[in-house]
Amino acid sequence: MQRTWTSELTHRCGERVLLRGWLHRLRRLAGVSFLVLRDARGLAQVVIDDADLAAFVDRLHAESVLEVEGVAVASSQAPAGVEVREPQVRVLVAASAPPPVHLFQPTLRAQLPTLLDHAAVTLRYPRRRAVFEVTAATMAGFRASLRARCFVEIQTPKLVAAATESGANVFPVEYFGRRALLAQSPQFYKQMMVGVFERVFEVGPVFRAEPHDTPRHLNEYVSLDAEIGFIRDHRDVMAVLRHAIAGMAEAVRSDAAEAAALLDVELPEVPDPIPSVDFREAQRLISAATGERLEHEPDLAPAHETWLGEWARREHGSDFLFVTGFPMAKRPFYTHPAPDDPKFTNSFDLLWRGQELVTGGQRLHRHEDYLAVLAARGEDPAPYAAYLEAFRHGMPPHGGFGMGLERWVSRLVGAANIREVALFPRDLSRLTP
Amino acid sequence: MQRTWTSELTHRCGERVLLRGWLHRLRRLAGVSFLVLRDARGLAQVVIDDADLAAFVDRLHAESVLEVEGVAVASSQAPAGVEVREPQVRVLVAASAPPPVHLFQPTLRAQLPTLLDHAAVTLRYPRRRAVFEVTAATMAGFRASLRARCFVEIQTPKLVAAATESGANVFPVEYFGRRALLAQSPQFYKQMMVGVFERVFEVGPVFRAEPHDTPRHLNEYVSLDAEIGFIRDHRDVMAVLRHAIAGMAEAVRSDAAEAAALLDVELPEVPDPIPSVDFREAQRLISAATGERLEHEPDLAPAHETWLGEWARREHGSDFLFVTGFPMAKRPFYTHPAPDDPKFTNSFDLLWRGQELVTGGQRLHRHEDYLAVLAARGEDPAPYAAYLEAFRHGMPPHGGFGMGLERWVSRLVGAANIREVALFPRDLSRLTP
Repeated sequence: MQRTWTSELTHRCGERVLLRGWLHRLRRLAGVSFLVLRDARGLAQVVIDDADLAAFVDRLHAESVLEVEGVAVASSQAPAGVEVREPQVRVLVAASAPPPVHLFQPTLRAQLPTLLDHAAVTLRYPRRRAVFEVTAATMAGFRASLRARCFVEIQTPKLVAAATESGANVFPVEYFGRRALLAQSPQFYKQMMVGVFERVFEVGPVFRAEPHDTPRHLNEYVSLDAEIGFIRDHRDVMAVLRHAIAGMAEAVRSDAAEAAALLDVELPEVPDPIPSVDFREAQRLISAATGERLEHEPDLAPAHETWLGEWARREHGSDFLFVTGFPMAKRPFYTHPAPDDPKFTNSFDLLWRGQELVTGGQRLHRHEDYLAVLAARGEDPAPYAAYLEAFRHGMPPHGGFGMGLERWVSRLVGAANIREVALFPRDLSRLTP
Repeated sequence: MQRTWTSELTHRCGERVLLRGWLHRLRRLAGVSFLVLRDARGLAQVVIDDADLAAFVDRLHAESVLEVEGVAVASSQAPAGVEVREPQVRVLVAASAPPPVHLFQPTLRAQLPTLLDHAAVTLRYPRRRAVFEVTAATMAGFRASLRARCFVEIQTPKLVAAATESGANVFPVEYFGRRALLAQSPQFYKQMMVGVFERVFEVGPVFRAEPHDTPRHLNEYVSLDAEIGFIRDHRDVMAVLRHAIAGMAEAVRSDAAEAAALLDVELPEVPDPIPSVDFREAQRLISAATGERLEHEPDLAPAHETWLGEWARREHGSDFLFVTGFPMAKRPFYTHPAPDDPKFTNSFDLLWRGQELVTGGQRLHRHEDYLAVLAARGEDPAPYAAYLEAFRHGMPPHGGFGMGLERWVSRLVGAANIREVALFPRDLSRLTP
């Protein structure tokens, strides 16, 4: 007999069905018991009239793996409008102990460390699981939208010889008696690959040895990266990014509809184009409204981003806002200066609901510009030799962006702590499970 | 004026076009010169009649980035049946030096270390680039075929506290004053996730500190992993694997047709089902044919795999062959024993053209079986606590497989060395570029 998924039960009323899954819960009432069976797609209510069977199931620990054969019957009292009656229950695998956290409650009654310590079990909780359905849909949507624009997917090395971002915050690796580092981003490689494919993207892990213990930091996360050649300037990158984010939102809507509904996800409208404000203009707006003196500030504080988020909603009806033209002082050395004032850059941040979601911009593309900027910083170009070779041999104007997958999902599902949206998060103190 | 890709030129005959790309080659003949322009899609021949323009282009180094405006004209002499005449040439970025390797030759005249040292440039060579179009199509095909069977994509941590395979061959990482390891595979995590999604897959980097300097080893590679719950035994995993490989081949055929043609890729037929032979029967066949005594050998030698590959072609008309039922001695501790003889296992290797491509099988799923097998090996279960918790709380019969992306591509394109099919390979001596 072929297995029926719990989600298909409503279409099988009147039929004999075989379900497989986990003993999510047993509720024993006076004359009847209800076994709730969970599989990868949902829950099913199984009605047990037989006192012996009820007693037998009651002796099993929750999370035991069962096979249930019975008749699907429409029932207005059952949670999904259908339940399974006259069940035969076979134990495939008996759980050895009660679960560390009860999974049947409407809200998991456990602190975050407990949830994370027992991830192998707590990820089975339907609302925890739904988060990672949203994650999977996001990755699929990111890739599909870029593939539709002829981007080629690449996989670049995570073991590297030199830091791509700042020299700090890298994890050292013992590599056959030498010191290697874990890649902080695929930045250099995706730029080099613009010389090959013009348009590339990557979905992969990045590693940041930042010793911050906050609800917003992970030391290993998944980065959604893209890079594109033959651009006018950063505005072409912003258009690609808008397209990618719209694709991510659309994929969550279509591929993870039930998970999104379970989590009360409010999928954003992504305006086309996303409104944009220049950094200096943003400072002027904030100063005019708040009285703060900002003209010598090289970056936006979180409170400023919040203010701009509200402003974008008010003035443009948009949850998204590009801030462009950040000062060079706060941007990495490969950032392309603004043509009208080299103290500023052809870079951008994308704010979503008043918080930074993505950073990107146009990069330098001339070999001599790289040599000049490294010299001005007093940096030896030797560690960058392989990277600089790409520019020595002809690179078009190009740019790109990097976006933390967990940051997107965490905002989408309203997580209080970004660790809630990583399957097995890594932080200052956490290397297991 | 909108850019035309070189691959679209044949559809633009008679029209004025704007091309962008790299100066691939300039051929100067007596009365005329031919500029070959390369973009991400192909090559275009540009005819230069003007002696001054030819002299100007001749002063540029190859790989300079150009914009060429001219008229697309059908021409039986042009390589693609179309060429660009009356060109205006604008230099977007002049290359600073001649390329380290000439990219216009039919075969790159350089040794592998030179190709790898100068990857930023040599990956632009059309046949090198085509390899990574095949790679991208393979990843897309793997994901699409598994998504179609309701597998959920996961991203598991690469920084771990304990080795997943053998304790040797792991790279240590300095992690905030503690010792972490780089994951050798997502094995434990994908099994744990069977308890959540029943069917999961992952495409991501794995790290093996094997000090082997051979044409078949990489120390970092991309692993295509899947794991599936509620199986009968390893045969259900084999069916999923067949489906995934057929999807990979089909995606190369449809998404990377030109790259595959350029590389003379002979795409395999994937029979359904793939023929299968038991390990002991395979040994008997080889013994009968060669006279070798194999009954106490716990594994197949490469020569035996070659013999079996020829046998499968002869007897079954198949390039693929499953060998099942390997002895327990050579399989990892989580391998499920064969029901009829626990010295053997419910595991398999998939041979392709006489070489191992994939390893997989059924895993143990009972908590007590894990405890027993670790005790029998004299291993402390404590480092496995987070992993074992999944089994303590009910795990269905399950199994899966792991396949090296580069191994598949390398066989497909006939690479002599697996380093040819990694963008920026990592080996005993190579950490750059």
